[in-house]
Amino acid sequence: MNPTNILVIGGVAAGASFAARARRLNESAQITIIERGPDVSFANCGLPYHIGGEIPTRDVLSVQTPATLKSLLNVNVRTLTEAIAIDRKNKRVQVRNVTNGETEWLSYDKLMLAPGAAPRVPEVPGVDDARVYTLRNLADMDRIASAANSGMRAVVVGAGFIGLEMAEQLHRKGLSVEIVQIGSQVLLQLDAKIAILLENELLHNDIKLHLNEQVVRYENKDGALQCHLSSGSKLQADFVVLSIGVEPESTLARDAGLKLGARGHIVVNKFMQTSDPDIYAAGDVVETADRVYNVPVNVPLGGPANRQGRVAADHLFMGKQARPYPGSIATAIVRVFGTAAGCTGWTEDRLKAINKPYRAVTVNDYNHATYFPGATPLTLKILWDPESGVVLGGQAAGYDGVDKRLDVLATAITAKMTIEDLCHLELSYAPPFGSAKDIVNLAGFAATNQMDNLVTTVTELPTDPNVQIVDVRGKALADAGPVPGAINIPMPTLRDNLNKLDKNRPVVTLCVLGKNSYFASRVLKQNGFDVKSLDGGLKILINPRNPGKL
Amino acid sequence: MNPTNILVIGGVAAGASFAARARRLNESAQITIIERGPDVSFANCGLPYHIGGEIPTRDVLSVQTPATLKSLLNVNVRTLTEAIAIDRKNKRVQVRNVTNGETEWLSYDKLMLAPGAAPRVPEVPGVDDARVYTLRNLADMDRIASAANSGMRAVVVGAGFIGLEMAEQLHRKGLSVEIVQIGSQVLLQLDAKIAILLENELLHNDIKLHLNEQVVRYENKDGALQCHLSSGSKLQADFVVLSIGVEPESTLARDAGLKLGARGHIVVNKFMQTSDPDIYAAGDVVETADRVYNVPVNVPLGGPANRQGRVAADHLFMGKQARPYPGSIATAIVRVFGTAAGCTGWTEDRLKAINKPYRAVTVNDYNHATYFPGATPLTLKILWDPESGVVLGGQAAGYDGVDKRLDVLATAITAKMTIEDLCHLELSYAPPFGSAKDIVNLAGFAATNQMDNLVTTVTELPTDPNVQIVDVRGKALADAGPVPGAINIPMPTLRDNLNKLDKNRPVVTLCVLGKNSYFASRVLKQNGFDVKSLDGGLKILINPRNPGKL
Repeated sequence: MNPTNILVIGGVAAGASFAARARRLNESAQITIIERGPDVSFANCGLPYHIGGEIPTRDVLSVQTPATLKSLLNVNVRTLTEAIAIDRKNKRVQVRNVTNGETEWLSYDKLMLAPGAAPRVPEVPGVDDARVYTLRNLADMDRIASAANSGMRAVVVGAGFIGLEMAEQLHRKGLSVEIVQIGSQVLLQLDAKIAILLENELLHNDIKLHLNEQVVRYENKDGALQCHLSSGSKLQADFVVLSIGVEPESTLARDAGLKLGARGHIVVNKFMQTSDPDIYAAGDVVETADRVYNVPVNVPLGGPANRQGRVAADHLFMGKQARPYPGSIATAIVRVFGTAAGCTGWTEDRLKAINKPYRAVTVNDYNHATYFPGATPLTLKILWDPESGVVLGGQAAGYDGVDKRLDVLATAITAKMTIEDLCHLELSYAPPFGSAKDIVNLAGFAATNQMDNLVTTVTELPTDPNVQIVDVRGKALADAGPVPGAINIPMPTLRDNLNKLDKNRPVVTLCVLGKNSYFASRVLKQNGFDVKSLDGGLKILINPRNPGKL
Repeated sequence: MNPTNILVIGGVAAGASFAARARRLNESAQITIIERGPDVSFANCGLPYHIGGEIPTRDVLSVQTPATLKSLLNVNVRTLTEAIAIDRKNKRVQVRNVTNGETEWLSYDKLMLAPGAAPRVPEVPGVDDARVYTLRNLADMDRIASAANSGMRAVVVGAGFIGLEMAEQLHRKGLSVEIVQIGSQVLLQLDAKIAILLENELLHNDIKLHLNEQVVRYENKDGALQCHLSSGSKLQADFVVLSIGVEPESTLARDAGLKLGARGHIVVNKFMQTSDPDIYAAGDVVETADRVYNVPVNVPLGGPANRQGRVAADHLFMGKQARPYPGSIATAIVRVFGTAAGCTGWTEDRLKAINKPYRAVTVNDYNHATYFPGATPLTLKILWDPESGVVLGGQAAGYDGVDKRLDVLATAITAKMTIEDLCHLELSYAPPFGSAKDIVNLAGFAATNQMDNLVTTVTELPTDPNVQIVDVRGKALADAGPVPGAINIPMPTLRDNLNKLDKNRPVVTLCVLGKNSYFASRVLKQNGFDVKSLDGGLKILINPRNPGKL
C-alpha cells in the first residue's frame, strides 16, 4: 500500500496538532502543511504580550519552525503558500505561491482544513487607514509593536478577550488607551455584574471605556486618526486596534461545496470529518456541538483547536478505535491588569436567548484562608437547571485563583454534576492554597439553600418604598457608604432589634458580600418576616461608571 | 414543643460548623458548645505558620470567640469544660470544669461529638521531656513559638503534612532543622517518586532528612535533648516536635457504648449519626466511606470536618430532605518552601494494599504556556482502572498550579470520569494561566496512549544488559549527565540513525520529561523495534539522597 498522502491547510494550532498526532500514529504517511503566512505553529495567544513587552523575546512565540517540524516530525511545510481551490473529485488542491503568484495542484488522499478565522473588519469609512490594525499573526504583531510608542493615544475597538489584552498591554507600554465597545459591558461572554469587576479594574488603571458605542467613521485629521463614535463624540488616536471578533475562513470550503453552518463555519461530525469524508476540518473554522445543550457552537480558542486536530488524526489512522470530539463548553479566561475573569458553560444571557430555565447565585469569598497572608477577594457565579440541579455555567472574577475555580466548574459541568455535588467537592486545602470550605463549595451551599427554600434572593435593590431595606453591615461601614432608604441593623444586633421592623412589610437584607445578609434573612424568616437577601452583596452592584448610585 | 436542646462537644471545625448550620436552620434551639481547651473555632491549619512568623498576627487565628458565637449565632460556649461521661439512657453528659475540677450533668435532646483527634505520642524513654512538643491548639503553638529561637536546633519527628510544615516554618525562623521519618520517603500519602520532588526541596533548603529512622530514646545530655535513632546515630536538639499522626479522641464514645471502627474511630451513617441516633459525630474522630471503593476511611482534615458538621445539622432539622455525606477521596496538599505537592484519591501503595488493579502514568509539563514569563515545571501522576478507564487517583508536585490540577482531578474522581474524559476537559486557557493543552489533558493523552497500546512504559531503567537504552536528549545534556549504558541519539536525528540500533534487542527510550522518549518510542515501534519508554522521564528518577545513581 502506498503511504497516505496528507495535505494540511493551515499550520497553527489545529493544523500543527493534527500533523504531529498523524505522524505519531503513522511513520510512513506523507504529510505536508500549506501555510499562507510566513510562520507556522506560532503562539497566537501570546501576540498581545509581546506588543506590550511582557513577553520580551519574540523568538519564544515560534513554537515550531518548518525546520523543526521536518526534523522532529518529518513533516514538510510550505509557507507563503495559499490554497485557492479544492478539486474534490480529483482529490487535489490548487495552491498559489504568495511571493511570485505561481500556482500548482497538489494531490491528497486526506485533506485537513485548518485555515482559522480572520479578524472582523467593519465596513465603515476610513477603516482602510493604515493606522487601523488587526492582530492575527506575527506580522500583525510586528506592525502594531513598531507603531506603538510610549505617550501615544491608542483606541481599541471591541472589548472581548483580545481587545482587553491589547488595552492592558498598550497601557503597559505607556500609551493612553481608550476602549470602544458596542455592548453595554465589556466581555459579552460574562453576565453584566461579573463584567463590572473587570470594568472597575480598567477604570482603576485609567483606561477609558466607551460603552454602547461604535466607531462609525475614521478620519485623518491634523495628522491624527479621529474616531467618530455613534453618539457623536470623537476620539483622537495615533492608531486603532480592531478586535471585534473573528470570521471563519471558510470560503475555500464553501467553494468546494462543503456543508457550512448558519454563521459560515464548516460543519463536521464528531470525528471532525466535513461533509466530504476525505476532508477533515478543525479549529476556529468549524462549528461543533455544545456539551450541555447539544446546539451548534463555534469556540475559536486554542484548546479546542488543538484537541480537534488530534481527534481528526486519530480517526484517520485508528478508525473505529478513535474517540470522538465530545463538543465544547466554551471555557475562557482573561487577565486585565491584576484582575482575572472568565467563564465556563452558559451565562444568563445565553440561557435567556434559548429560553432555558435556570437559577443563579453569586458568592463572594477569598482565594484562600483569610488568616493566611495574601488572601484576595474572589467572586463566583453559578447557574443551574432548576429541575435537575445540574450545573449549567460558572463565572469567576478576582485577583488569584480564578482559573482554578473555572477549571473545577468546567470539570463539573462536563461531568453533569449538580449543585449538590458542588457542596461536597473535596478540594485541596492548606492555608496557602484554599479554604476548608472553598468558594466552589460555598456556591453549592448557597444554591442548595435556594433549592431548599431556605433563602429567597433578589439581584437588585428594591424600588418599592413599601419594602424595608435592612443593611446588616457594621455601623462604620454603613455610615461611610449608606444605602438610600436602608435601616442599618448590624448583624450581631439583629435578634435584639426585630421590633424596629414591621412584620407586615416585606424586607430585603443586604451586606457587602451577601453572606451576612443571608444569615440575617434566616433570622428574619424564622421570626415570621417576608424576607429576601441581596444576592452577591453590594460588591457587584457598585457600578464604576456611576459609583454614586447604588 | 420545647426548643431542641443541643449539646456540642468540641468547638473547632466540625463542632463549630454544626452549631452554625443548626442555628441557621432553627432560631429557637438551645445550642451549647462544650470545649475542653481555652479557645473555640480557631484556625488549626494555621498554627505552624504563626510559629514561623508567616502569619504574624496571632489574633487572626481565632476565627470566632465565645462572644462572637453568642452575638452572631446565639450559641452558648463553655470553654475549659471537659465532657467526661455520656449517660445515653438519661440523655445527659457529665462535664468537668477544667479549672476547678467541679462536675455537673448537662442534659441534651441531640448530642454532637466533635472532639477531634490527638497527636500520637510514642511510648519511648524520655518522650515526656518538656522539650518534646506536639501541636494541636493555640496553647501548643504558643509553647513551641516561645521555645523556638533563631540558631537553635530542632528535630521534627514525622514527615507528614504537619511535620513538613513545621520543618519549613522552623527553618524560616532561623533554626537548623532535621526530620526523622519512619518510612522510606516523606509524605506517605504520595507515591515515592512524587515524594522525591519534595525531598529535593527539603535538601535544597538545608533540611536534613533521616529516612527509615525512628527516635527510640530521648536523653537529656549536656543541656541538649539527644535523640537516639534506631540506626544508632544520635541527633542533638534544643527541642523536638512530634508529628507522627493523630489518634481519634473516642474514649468518651467508647465508654458510652457507641460503635467504633477497627482503628478506634466513631462509626457513623451517611447523616453522621452514630449507633445512637440521638448522637451525631463529625470530624477527625469519625470514619466515613471512601468515595471510590466504599471502604472505611478516616480523613482528619478541615474540609471534611466542616462539611460533616453541616450534614449533621441538616439531618437534625431537615430530616428526609437532608443530603447525605457522600464520603471522602482524601484530597490533600502541602507547601514546602517553593514546592507544593498533594494527592487526591488513591495511590499505588494504597491500591496494592487492597489488591486493586491499576495503571499509572506520570507526565511533566509547566503550569502555563512556556512562552509566557514565569512558567514553572509541574509533575502530574494519575492512576486509573485498567478495565473501565475510571480515574482512581492523582498526585501533583511543582511550584505553581499544583492545587489547581489536584482540584480538577478531585472533581473528576468524584464524577467517576475516565482517562478519556480527561483528554477533553476544556480548562481555562490564556497565557498567564494555562496551556492550550493543560497537563491534565496531557495526562489523559498519555493514559489513553497506554490503553491503546501506542506506548509501553517502564518506571525504572533496565538492568538487563541486553536492553538498549536510547537517550534521546540533546547531546549537550546527555554529555553533562550521561546515563550509564545509554546510547545518545537526539530525537531530531533518530530517524536517520536507526541503523545504530539492533532490532533483535529490546529498547528503552528516555529523556528528561518523558515526552521525547514517547515520541522516539513511536518512531522505533513503527520501525519494528520492541521498545518501551521511561515514564515520567529522568526528572523523577533523580534521587537527592543518591544523586549520582540513576
